[in-house]
Amino acid sequence: MKNLLYAQSGGVTAVINASAAAVIEAARASGQVGHVLAARHGLVGVLDEALLDTSMLSADDLARLARTPGGAFGSCRFDLPEPEDDAAPYDRLFQVLAAHEVGYLLYNGGNGSMHTVAQIAGEAARRGVPLVTVGVPKTVDNDIEGTDCCPGFGSAGKYVATAMLEAGMDLRAMASRVGRVFVMEVMGRNAGWLAAATALARRGGDDPPHIVLMPEVPIDRARLLAEVERTVARIGYCAIAVSEGISWEGGERVMEQHVDAKGYVQLGGAGQTIARLLSAELGYKHHWAIPDYLQRAAGHLVSATDFEQAHAVGSAAVEYALAGRDAMMPAIRRVSDAPYRWDIVPVPAAEVGNRERLVPAHFIRDDGLHVTPAAIDWLRPLVAGELPVHFDGGVPDWRQFELPRLASRLAG
Amino acid sequence: MKNLLYAQSGGVTAVINASAAAVIEAARASGQVGHVLAARHGLVGVLDEALLDTSMLSADDLARLARTPGGAFGSCRFDLPEPEDDAAPYDRLFQVLAAHEVGYLLYNGGNGSMHTVAQIAGEAARRGVPLVTVGVPKTVDNDIEGTDCCPGFGSAGKYVATAMLEAGMDLRAMASRVGRVFVMEVMGRNAGWLAAATALARRGGDDPPHIVLMPEVPIDRARLLAEVERTVARIGYCAIAVSEGISWEGGERVMEQHVDAKGYVQLGGAGQTIARLLSAELGYKHHWAIPDYLQRAAGHLVSATDFEQAHAVGSAAVEYALAGRDAMMPAIRRVSDAPYRWDIVPVPAAEVGNRERLVPAHFIRDDGLHVTPAAIDWLRPLVAGELPVHFDGGVPDWRQFELPRLASRLAG
Repeated sequence: MKNLLYAQSGGVTAVINASAAAVIEAARASGQVGHVLAARHGLVGVLDEALLDTSMLSADDLARLARTPGGAFGSCRFDLPEPEDDAAPYDRLFQVLAAHEVGYLLYNGGNGSMHTVAQIAGEAARRGVPLVTVGVPKTVDNDIEGTDCCPGFGSAGKYVATAMLEAGMDLRAMASRVGRVFVMEVMGRNAGWLAAATALARRGGDDPPHIVLMPEVPIDRARLLAEVERTVARIGYCAIAVSEGISWEGGERVMEQHVDAKGYVQLGGAGQTIARLLSAELGYKHHWAIPDYLQRAAGHLVSATDFEQAHAVGSAAVEYALAGRDAMMPAIRRVSDAPYRWDIVPVPAAEVGNRERLVPAHFIRDDGLHVTPAAIDWLRPLVAGELPVHFDGGVPDWRQFELPRLASRLAG
Repeated sequence: MKNLLYAQSGGVTAVINASAAAVIEAARASGQVGHVLAARHGLVGVLDEALLDTSMLSADDLARLARTPGGAFGSCRFDLPEPEDDAAPYDRLFQVLAAHEVGYLLYNGGNGSMHTVAQIAGEAARRGVPLVTVGVPKTVDNDIEGTDCCPGFGSAGKYVATAMLEAGMDLRAMASRVGRVFVMEVMGRNAGWLAAATALARRGGDDPPHIVLMPEVPIDRARLLAEVERTVARIGYCAIAVSEGISWEGGERVMEQHVDAKGYVQLGGAGQTIARLLSAELGYKHHWAIPDYLQRAAGHLVSATDFEQAHAVGSAAVEYALAGRDAMMPAIRRVSDAPYRWDIVPVPAAEVGNRERLVPAHFIRDDGLHVTPAAIDWLRPLVAGELPVHFDGGVPDWRQFELPRLASRLAG
């Protein structure tokens, strides 16, 4: 029996390890896989022959692994060249896989990783290498094409919506003779999905967030200022969610740029820039928050739906691999909105690789400053459901797993 | 029977409403209080005669109120002048209280508010106004003297420790050929308690945070850089918690200062400044997070210990008021460390007002770059215990309470 190699790629999520655990469980249960190996730090680890043996993980360990945020085996940001430009990494890759008798490669990542899946599968086929390569989708950015949503997004969305809800209650409490604004910058360089998800904090018309700025819509500065002023005039404060990658009309990215005392060019982020602009132009007090890693690592606030989907794509990927469905990615298909139902369908990695799924126009309010009710309806089920969290000493009891590295079978 | 007026002051917390609910419950249960009134936006609201009637809150509402983050009645930042400098605000204050038959004033705030309690009580006594004024301690900064810890701190500490734990797992996952640093800036202008609390994320020696920077210790730049380099050389990354108010040796605050294109002076925060410094000096990749309001509003991650203490000081304050213990503050006294036990004792507000309790030297490691095991032992029980959270539609179901404003009895 051939071995299966699982590797993680790109930014990790609060549920990426649920996919990892599902892969290991499904491979073991199949009886058709030798060992399940994991790459240390993704494809970089494969090329370094830094492979881990998952055999020592018990069923209980796997249940714990599934609920551990971060990438248990490590991830990387690494793009393969096209094989016609540079064949060497492929030579090395296939040598490592052959040396460790790997017949199945499962690559857990975003749209760039799906391109990598297509590259590896294509080159393996061209060379006649006996390998089945399957993609496992994952990204908090929710920007992979071909799937209704992306594992990792629901939990990050739950986090940012909860953060906006709670910060908004704090903002509301403080009296002030001048208006006050709160800006939270969330992830999303090109796609505004996480900014849109903050709108799930709203229950009534005047609840935060009052404004949602997404990269899909270049910002009309005058319109933004007017909307903030209207909101502050009405309720005294204004809470704003911004994607890190927003830009002004004309295309300039929203960031402060300046040269510090030592001559380095420094960039202020989008959230900070918007907060300071409102303070400078309108005289409001301002606060800003940047959750950064916190939004994609919050295992204590995972969406049960997201967790199930992360598990499901892991299991399905093993199924596809064993069925020889090369270069495919299990995708989530929405079967119905209410009640929310979904299933898993295969899509070719080549069709989705390196493409980017943006927030569609009908999810964005006409003035570009918020989302539509249709967006809320679409987003809501993705953040639904909670999972128990085990605490120890007041903090979540997340286990870290140190797996033994396999002995090298190749010269470095 | 006289009425009781409750008011909140300063930055709110995740458990300040637990004190509010306890005040209302205890006052009702006593049978010795007429109505329990709440000021809209603290002392500002009292002077504006913006008073709310809490009578409509049912027992169930109070249970919900106790678990609602933010300040339900609103807070303010407002200092009374000394009465000998300006008697007018006192004239107005006592007029409002008399008009609404208030015999008990409970003021829920930090060390500034305890000074206010002493001012009001002193002036009422001097004028012969029949009023008992009692302070109720609260601050995420944990910097009130005379109490072992401050309600609000344990929950914020639990939040920042959890955030550091989870972000650290994300940081650890990412491979990189260069080192990488993560900096999280937490609240604390003069006191490093919240930065210290991030150390509760650690289970083993190499766990984040690797460095904790507190305002109590001016930073030796060379020593900081060396410690970061050593950490990155050992494990590849370094996670750092910084208080917003840290300063360099020599006294200069850690912040970037520059003039933007429009001529405004802009300040970069401590976290951002440290992250960029490490990137510029050591060539590391950097990320930084600023939880801002999120750390003091996270009702979804409340410490059960903190919640109990917030409730206890509210109940005790009513007891003190009814017993005529004017100008006192119920304080938390630590009776034993393990098992952790505490009780409530009265301390005079005048003794703690406007003083600031910093992290003591024996809680700070000799090199000034981390906390000691003694600090961990002291901090741990304060973040212990969890409370159930009710979710609706994927986010916490925090209720907002809109109470009727009492009709004015005075000319504006």
